[in-house]
Parts: sequence; structure tokens; C-alpha cells
Amino acid sequence: MSNIQQFASDNYAGICPQAWAAMDAANRGHAPAYGEDPWTQAAADTFRALFVTDCEVFFAFNGTAANSMALAALCQSYHSVICAESAHVETDECGAPEFFSNGSKLLVAPSPDGKLTPAAIREIAGKRSDIHYPKPRVVTITQPTETGQVYSPAEVAAISAVCRELGLRLHMDGARFANACAHLGCDPADITWKVGVDVLCFGGTKNGMAVGEAILFFDRALAEDFDYRCKQAGQLASKMRFLAAPWTGMLEGGAWLANAAHANACARRLADRIAGVPGASLMFPVQANAVFVAAPEDRLEALRARGWRFYTFIGGGARFMFSWDADMGRVDALAADMETVFGA
Amino acid sequence: MSNIQQFASDNYAGICPQAWAAMDAANRGHAPAYGEDPWTQAAADTFRALFVTDCEVFFAFNGTAANSMALAALCQSYHSVICAESAHVETDECGAPEFFSNGSKLLVAPSPDGKLTPAAIREIAGKRSDIHYPKPRVVTITQPTETGQVYSPAEVAAISAVCRELGLRLHMDGARFANACAHLGCDPADITWKVGVDVLCFGGTKNGMAVGEAILFFDRALAEDFDYRCKQAGQLASKMRFLAAPWTGMLEGGAWLANAAHANACARRLADRIAGVPGASLMFPVQANAVFVAAPEDRLEALRARGWRFYTFIGGGARFMFSWDADMGRVDALAADMETVFGA
Amino acid sequence: MSNIQQFASDNYAGICPQAWAAMDAANRGHAPAYGEDPWTQAAADTFRALFVTDCEVFFAFNGTAANSMALAALCQSYHSVICAESAHVETDECGAPEFFSNGSKLLVAPSPDGKLTPAAIREIAGKRSDIHYPKPRVVTITQPTETGQVYSPAEVAAISAVCRELGLRLHMDGARFANACAHLGCDPADITWKVGVDVLCFGGTKNGMAVGEAILFFDRALAEDFDYRCKQAGQLASKMRFLAAPWTGMLEGGAWLANAAHANACARRLADRIAGVPGASLMFPVQANAVFVAAPEDRLEALRARGWRFYTFIGGGARFMFSWDADMGRVDALAADMETVFGA
Amino acid sequence: MSNIQQFASDNYAGICPQAWAAMDAANRGHAPAYGEDPWTQAAADTFRALFVTDCEVFFAFNGTAANSMALAALCQSYHSVICAESAHVETDECGAPEFFSNGSKLLVAPSPDGKLTPAAIREIAGKRSDIHYPKPRVVTITQPTETGQVYSPAEVAAISAVCRELGLRLHMDGARFANACAHLGCDPADITWKVGVDVLCFGGTKNGMAVGEAILFFDRALAEDFDYRCKQAGQLASKMRFLAAPWTGMLEGGAWLANAAHANACARRLADRIAGVPGASLMFPVQANAVFVAAPEDRLEALRARGWRFYTFIGGGARFMFSWDADMGRVDALAADMETVFGA
Repeated sequence: MSNIQQFASDNYAGICPQAWAAMDAANRGHAPAYGEDPWTQAAADTFRALFVTDCEVFFAFNGTAANSMALAALCQSYHSVICAESAHVETDECGAPEFFSNGSKLLVAPSPDGKLTPAAIREIAGKRSDIHYPKPRVVTITQPTETGQVYSPAEVAAISAVCRELGLRLHMDGARFANACAHLGCDPADITWKVGVDVLCFGGTKNGMAVGEAILFFDRALAEDFDYRCKQAGQLASKMRFLAAPWTGMLEGGAWLANAAHANACARRLADRIAGVPGASLMFPVQANAVFVAAPEDRLEALRARGWRFYTFIGGGARFMFSWDADMGRVDALAADMETVFGA
Repeated sequence: MSNIQQFASDNYAGICPQAWAAMDAANRGHAPAYGEDPWTQAAADTFRALFVTDCEVFFAFNGTAANSMALAALCQSYHSVICAESAHVETDECGAPEFFSNGSKLLVAPSPDGKLTPAAIREIAGKRSDIHYPKPRVVTITQPTETGQVYSPAEVAAISAVCRELGLRLHMDGARFANACAHLGCDPADITWKVGVDVLCFGGTKNGMAVGEAILFFDRALAEDFDYRCKQAGQLASKMRFLAAPWTGMLEGGAWLANAAHANACARRLADRIAGVPGASLMFPVQANAVFVAAPEDRLEALRARGWRFYTFIGGGARFMFSWDADMGRVDALAADMETVFGA
Repeated sequence: MSNIQQFASDNYAGICPQAWAAMDAANRGHAPAYGEDPWTQAAADTFRALFVTDCEVFFAFNGTAANSMALAALCQSYHSVICAESAHVETDECGAPEFFSNGSKLLVAPSPDGKLTPAAIREIAGKRSDIHYPKPRVVTITQPTETGQVYSPAEVAAISAVCRELGLRLHMDGARFANACAHLGCDPADITWKVGVDVLCFGGTKNGMAVGEAILFFDRALAEDFDYRCKQAGQLASKMRFLAAPWTGMLEGGAWLANAAHANACARRLADRIAGVPGASLMFPVQANAVFVAAPEDRLEALRARGWRFYTFIGGGARFMFSWDADMGRVDALAADMETVFGA
Repeated sequence: MSNIQQFASDNYAGICPQAWAAMDAANRGHAPAYGEDPWTQAAADTFRALFVTDCEVFFAFNGTAANSMALAALCQSYHSVICAESAHVETDECGAPEFFSNGSKLLVAPSPDGKLTPAAIREIAGKRSDIHYPKPRVVTITQPTETGQVYSPAEVAAISAVCRELGLRLHMDGARFANACAHLGCDPADITWKVGVDVLCFGGTKNGMAVGEAILFFDRALAEDFDYRCKQAGQLASKMRFLAAPWTGMLEGGAWLANAAHANACARRLADRIAGVPGASLMFPVQANAVFVAAPEDRLEALRARGWRFYTFIGGGARFMFSWDADMGRVDALAADMETVFGA
């Protein structure tokens, strides 16, 4: 384990001070288990305050489970879920949505930039209407997308409008929801329930926690017996306070937003610095905490030779992902190496 | 949240110092995610050293998931699992084993003391052999049982012998496995793979961790692709080091055993003190960290009136469960109140 | 294959003339598939006429699938289903209800005679109300029971009243529903939706068809997207007319009731003839097409020695089950042998 | 219901004389249920004779169930199945494979003609090898494809070779397997186990039966406890003889092949007659019982105006599918109308 930061993933970072302090504070004496403790109640209330609505709040261990349980709550096994082809639920959850729902099929929309559009939803939802094909029932969007782009409130509103028209529920995978809020500068409510999102999975792990995601049902009726679902799916923590308390620590003092803003700023810095470098080009607008750079494979290899590690994708793209504690000096060092390597 | 300890559950306790220190130490800089970090490797190796065998080791978030995934790995949906009627998988996991396995039925053996016996297994396994009833394929035993009793190595060996004879796999739910080891004074190997256990779910949460259980496959062939199973079931932590590192912290210095021994000693103390009290009687031998007391309902009510909280069960039993940090002074206070209330 | 009839099971009988003639008539030319044919429409209408209500009607291949899909439609995986301990869904469907529902647990009520009662339902439903145990959501009763007893309309009404009170849905497994109607002499509506049954699985196979059960949703809202469920579960016949047409053939001319009445009469005859035989006793009131006889094992062995085949159960009981084409002469022959063997 | 044949689907045909006669013959007296009857044994033996191998044979109600159960037997929920994008399991089974397997993902290979190739399999299987994506475990091919093309023995052998190399099992969806055999003029063994197929679903319904598919495991080890799987999945017929006997009737006298050959000949006739028509073109080589014609939408509309019914697909294609009893005169009438309409 090197102490020198890499930017391969924002999951590589540890626990932020605020989350740590909250866990420490919660680790005093005994408390009822399974969420019957005051920290869990407080965390849920903090979410309700932040979103300015009386939503139902649940806590799960990770994003795969949070997304899968939320989707399963919105449809039956013979229904289907519309998503972008690059959606995490489709590409990186090992079939978890299908497993939790006992078979709901993901209907994948081609999407160059990872965003769903009303037109794409309409096309997929309208392709088939016979019983030989699973009936579309849910749309899931990732905010920001896996490529680091952020849906505007208007974009989400347009999507939810077509969802309402077609009888579809709208789920938001917010594994990096804080980064979207930091980019938009809007209230969380503005990009969720106020524009028609039914359920949000709000990611805590990438935001600086050890473990844990929150599931917010803005339509409380959809949350009926969801606590049983969590329990049965192995997602009910006995010492729940250690999942819940960090949320309060992160949300109350604003660390959630500050962490995200910092990560976004690192991405912005890298993007700005390499904007004019001739041998590299940004693959997507940089809005959240990711930078995707298209460059020839030999240039990427040269970058690796300088010690950098990153994921690569089809077509020569390299992904750099910045965490809540990304070291800006290291960002600059990366930028400098890129300038050298790509500009050569 | 009162600072005054109750003994309703060992899940009410927090994180022990060794687990906390290990998390703290792991929270230095960046590390690869999803178990590709050195802490996870070290924790797995520590388990292999402790059990003196090259077992496969996986980490899950909680016991419900650990048990359910292990059982699902041992059978198909049309198979069945033999367990005692008081087994946690049957009574307190909200159908998780059935959910993870997509339908495997639990076949419940009547068991006055929570223990399975070779005779009970043989009877259940032999009751039906037609395809209209799910074929028995796994036996699960809880060590110690939900009533706080510990299987001896000889008892487990006798069970595994009948399992081998009948083509059944043997799973051990060790939510409080450390307490069993502390009671028996034997090596972990002596009560597991050396006496025929195929898979052990070793509980960390009740032993002093924030979250997390280990799943040990002594027969490595049974662990094929189990990492995929964990991922799909929402049980793969991205920041795995925070699940894994505490294990090393607990196992290496012996805290796991010391914690359990202390909890057992608290139970022993309470049992000894109330042994001669006329109005109360122990419902089960006290071997681990639980004490079940049978007493008239009005006496239990009187005990509650003195501020004590505990679970009660059919027939007037009260359960007291001691954690790794149970305050012996409070145990004595409880005993004193019991003497007063029951002896009246 | 002997041509001499045995009475081990009513599944041993073939296809009755009316069902056969209807299949033959349907086998003329081409017809749209998957239920878009006129025979399927006609069969559904015939059911609606018979039950005098605008219910939703679906056809499945067998009773296991019909029951399991109906139960899955009434609950989620983390819910539970209350049934009698001898219910077919519990004892003879190899975990199908758990499989189709992805884990719903069956909560089994002890029942000496196979009947559920309001008190038993209330006790089971009230036993647990925490999220660690699957929440009761459905009650299923078998009409007639596996022991050949028939719920009266008043009994069903009493059960449905407690269901309504407790928020439970009521499912009726009517694998031999016709036999219950024949015994009661009431209209099908009187024993189903008029007394609070939500869903009925009406058995055709034992009633004289080759294959096929009908699923009737009296509460149409519960049938939402049930056609998709059937398709996904492999229960949508492409040449549906051959499942549907026999129903019309059986229902329109009254063969369904006549078949059942004959089978019941055979059971009645056997019961009457052995009523006074000293060495045998009826285990249950004979109301439908089954006779359960308690007799010493050596007497049952003597009966087998005379060529008779039957299922035996714990405690020495022998089951005789009569089909739509049971030969009354053979019933008398059986009775005579019983008189000889048991009376000896 | 018109008596005038259409060619929209081969599911529109009824029961062929040989299947009917076999059902009639089986409908004599009583017989043990659930496959314990002599007809079921005979049918299985007939399959073993036809394929000249001691395979395991099971009967299911329809193709969706047969395919789904077979695939579920070959993989776990966290595994994946490679198929062509037009495969029936992907496009027309309403998520049944995902449901029966509890979540196995279908990985879809682009395929202009509906055939999988070794290269396509290799590419998909090699795309991902991390635990975040379901591990490929099975390849399924449809013989003939949904577009009516037939894999040659060499093509299947090449596919099975890459399967063996990559640790994948090979499943064949033979909903119209007889049509493939009729086209190839080879023995069934030549196109299945001799070229590496592990499991075949042999379609009976489209071949002239009322209901029913056979599942043949050439690797008997893969069939372990498959009878339990059938039972649990609601696919075990109580009066199994009526599913099994028709197979014997069809296979022994050669009707299975004659039926298929006739259907193929009808397709061939239509293809030959419109080959030179200027305004229409065949979309795929005509090898089995389907003809796909590309033509302008207004021409297809004109064809509909003459009373013809057919499925259309993206890009203007019309599908004509011929059954075992297709009327050659009607085929000629269709061809004549096509000549008129398309040649205009």
C-alpha cells in the first residue's frame, strides 16, 4: 500500500473526519439494535430536514444492495427496468438487480454519454407491449452518470414527465449524489422529489463514509414493508448506529457537500490543465469528480510508466476519479505528467 | 440512551478497542477497493492461521447474509435444510435463507434445548424421499445454540458422521462462535473442520466489531465462485478494509477469545448467584453468554419495575445476554435484584 | 399397467369423455396462440357465468403452479402464508410456493383434521410482529382438505372475517373444488367470493381433464399483470385452446359436478359399508372423495396381499381416493375385502 | 375463427393425428401419476433410441419452461448465459430465464442472422473477468434460429469447441429441432451430443403436439435432481402419460420428421416462387419452416388487404411460418398474391 495517492477510484479513499467522529461518538455505551437507537432516528430526521420533506429513510450496506432493493420495491419479477447502457446496475452489479427482484430484466438504452433521455425512454417503453416481453415499470437514472455528467433539474423533470405519462416509476442511483448537488449548486430537493424522483439511493461510501447508503422514498406508499425487505435481504445492520450516525455527522455540518465540492474541484483542475494539451482530449464534459481522457494507447502506457494507475476503457479512454480527500498537489503532478506525456 | 447497561442483547454493545484501533489503523491513505487491499488479505491469512488450515475466507456484512449465502452455496432451490426449531435461520432472519436460495425449505426438528442430534437429523432426512418434497441436502447447527448451549466436539462429530452417511453438508452458524470456543477451551479447528464442519459463519458483530461476519469454507471446492455470489447479493464492501482489518485486530491479540470469555463469565456469575434462589430456575445449562430464567410473570414484572429490560418468551422465560463489555458490577446488581424479587 | 382399478389416487384416472370431446372439437383448423383464441375466451366466460361474477380467469398447467403463482401474486418474498400443516402447498409441492414467491415462508398451523380455523389463524398471525419474522399476508385453505373434509360457507366466512380484520388475503386451493361443491350442494359462488375468498385455484385435472387448472381472481385488482406472471413462470400455453376448451366442455353440461358427485358417492359407499366393521375405523368424516381408514398394520398388509394399493400414513392410516370414473363394483369389492380382512 | 389457414405462426396449428392417436391410446383405464406410468418410460426410451445414447429425459409443459429450467441447471444466479440478440430466451420469454435461475443475466451477441459464432462467443466471454459482472457459464443456441436458419454439425462443433475451451456449457433451444433435422438430413445425434451439445430442449408443440417439450441431458451428471427442479417449478404433470405418450406416437412412426419436412417444404415453395419477384427479397436463407420477406410497407399493407396476416419486424420484414399441416394450396395462393402485390 503506497501512501502516494492514485486516482483510479473514489472508493480507494478512507473515512472522512466527520464520519469518523460520528462513529466515535456513537460508540459510547449500549444502544438498542436494528435501528431502534437514537442515532438512526436522528439520521433519518436529518435527511428529512435536508430534503425538506417527510420521506421514508432506510439504510443499506452498499450501493448495489440499495439500488437493487429499491428497484425490486418498484416492480415485480415480470416487469422491466429501463436504464442507460453504461448504468452501474447493468454493468457492475453482477446481476444484483435481477437477483433481488427475482428476474426483472434491465432494458438498456444506447447512450453515448450515459444519460437517459425522454426520447430514449419512450422508444424502449414503446418497443413491445405483449406479454412475451417484461413490461417496463421503472426508469433508473444515475446522478451523476458513470461518465461524470450531471442531469439538470429540467432534464430530470422531463424524464419524470414521460415516466408519469407511461406509468413508470423513477429511481435515481445517487452513488455520487453529493457531487451532483455540488455541481448544480441546488438543494437536494430541487433535483429529486421536486422534479418527480420517486426513490433516491444516496451514496455515503464514496462521499467519505466507511460503509453505507441511504434509500429515500419520497412517495411513502412505495416504502410499505420495505423494512422487511431490508431484513430479508441481509441489509439490516444489528449495530445500526454505526451506519446511521456518520450520516448525521456528514450532513449536519455540510461535510457531505464540501467533500463532493472538493472532489469536483480536483476533476475540474485536471480538466482545465489538460484542456489545451494537443495529444489528449476530454471524452465527456467534466461536471462531477471524474475525468475521462482519450489518448493513444502508447501515451497511456507512458503515463503508467510514470507510476499512474487508472482504469481504461474501449477506445483508449482513461478514467481518473477524485475522492473527498484527493490531494490537489497530486492532481497537479498528474496534470504535469499528462502535459509531458500527451504533449510530446 | 442511558449509559446504564442492560442485558437484553449482546448486539447493544459497541465496538471494542481492538476492533476500533484496527479500523483506525486501516484508515490511513488510499487502498484498493473490493478486497484487493492488504488488510483483507491479512485478515484471511489470520483466519487460516487460527484454524490451522487453508480454508477459503469471505467477509459479509451481517450474520443473516452470511448464513443465507453459505446455505445457498450448499444447496439448490429444490433442496432443503435441516435445522432446530429455534435456529436463528428459522426464527429470526425473515425468510432470508429462502430468499437467497430462491426457495430452499427449512425442515425444522423439534428440539427442547436448541440442539440438533444425529437421531433428529436421521428422522427428518428419512421422512420423505419422493420428489414432491424438497430433498434434504444441508444440516445447519448453531454453535452455541440460541439458548446458550455449546456442542462438544464429540457431538459435532456425531452429527457430521450422519451427514456424511446421508449425503448432507454441515453448516455451522457461529454468530457467537467465540463464546463456544471460550467455553470449550479448545482450538477453533477442534470444533469445526476436524469434526466435519464444511462451512462456518464466524460472527464478528456480537464479538465486538461494528459490522461483519466471516464465512469460512473448509472444503474449498464448495467456495467456487462464492465471490460472485457475495457481489450479486449486495455483500461485497467497496471499502472492504474496514470490514477486514478489525478481524486481524481481534484475532491476533486474542481479543476475540477474551471478549467471549468475559461475556461467558458474566453469564456464569449471574447463574451462580441465582442458583439457590427459590423463585427462579435456570431454563438451560449456562455455557455461553446467555442466561434464561424461568419465573412467574409477576416476578418478572417486578424485575422490570426495577428498571431491567429483557426479552421474554413463551412459558415465562426471561433472557439475559451478556456482551464483550458487560459491566460485572451491573451483573451483580441484576443478581441482587433477582434475589430480592424472586426470593420474596 | 393393470386394467383393474386401484384407488390410490384420483390422478390415476384418465380424461373424461366431455373433456376429450372438447379437445377434439377444438382440434379443428388453426387458431391464434397464447389464449387469443375463441375457446379460451369462451372458457373464461363460462367460469364467469358459473360463478355469477366478473372475475379474472387464467389457466395454468397444474395445481402446484396455480397455487404458487396465486400466492406469489398476493404477497412479497418477505411476507408469509398461513396454512394447515397438512396443506398440499406445504407437504407436496417441493417448495414451489417458496420458489415462485422468491422466499415467502409458509407458517404452519397444527390441525388435526386439516382445517384452518379463525382461532388458529389469529394465533399464528399474532405470534410475531417484528421485522425479523416474515409478515403474514395470506391465508390459504384447501377445499376440500387433504383429508377429504369440506369447509361450510359459514366456516369460510368466519375465516375471511378474521382475514379482513388482520389484513390478510384469502386463497383457496381447490384442487378438488368440484367435490366440495358436490358435497355442499351449493353454488360455487356461495363457497368462494360471497364468503370472502379472494382467489380460487379450481382444479381440472383430478376432475377429469388431461391437464390444467383455472385461477380465478374475484378481486380483479389482485390480478394486475398476472398474465405476465404466467408467461414468465412458464405457465402460458401456446396452444391454449387445448387447456381451455375442456373447461367449457366440463362446465357447460355439468360434467364437472357429476364427475365429482360420482367420486364422492364412491367414497360414501365405502365408508358406509365399513362403518360397522370392528377392526377398522374412519379417521375423518367422509365428505368428499377420500376415505381414510385406521387399521392395524398387519390388517393393512393383509389387504395389500389381496392386491389393493393405497397410500399409508403415520399412525396406520390408509387412504383411498376415488376418481370421476371409479368403478362402483370395484368399490364394493374393496369393501368386501375390508370386511373380511378387518373383521377377522 | 376462420377455417382458412394463415401463416403467422406454427403455433396456430392443432394436434397432429399421430399425437392425437397416442393420447387416445393412453386414455385407457388408470395409470400411476407423475411419470411413474409405462408411457412415460416408453417415451424416454424412444428418445434414447432415436439419439442412440443413454441420455436423461424429462418432459415439461412448454418451451419457455424447458429452456429456463435447463439453463438454470447449468448455472447459478451469478453466472451468465451467452445468446444471440434474437434468441427466444432473450426476446420472447418475459424474463423467464432470469426468473427460473434467480437472476442469471443473458449476455447478448449482435448477430445479423440469429446465429452465434465462436468469435462472438469468445468476444463476449472475454469482455469481462471481474466479479462485478456475472461470469459466463453457458452458451445457448437456437436450432434452427428464430430466422429459420440451421446450424450445420460443423458449426455446432466449432461452437462447442470454444465452449469447452472457455469452460462453458452448451444448450440448444430446439423449439423447432425437427425442422433442423429435416433440413440437414442427419441423425439427431449428429447435430447434438456428437458435436458437443450438453442439453437439448426438443420442441413438441410446434411439431404437432398439444403441449409439451422434452429436455435431454446428454451429460447425465448435469441432470442431478432435475426431477426435483421440474416439480418445484410447476412443470411435473400429474397425468404425465398425456405429455409423454404423444412423443412415442410422433417419434416411432417418423411423424416428427415428416411433419417438419412438410413445413420446411412449404417454406421452400414460397421462397422459390417469390425468388424472382422484383419488389420483394428474402431476408434470410430459407432452411427451415420460416420465410422472411423484406418489402415496402405499402406492399405489405396491400398484402394484408388481401386477407393475409403475418408478423412484421423493424425494417419492413414480414414473417411467414409454416406448420406441420400447412396447406400447400394456401401457400401457392399466398405466393400468387405476393407476386401480384410485390411485382406491381
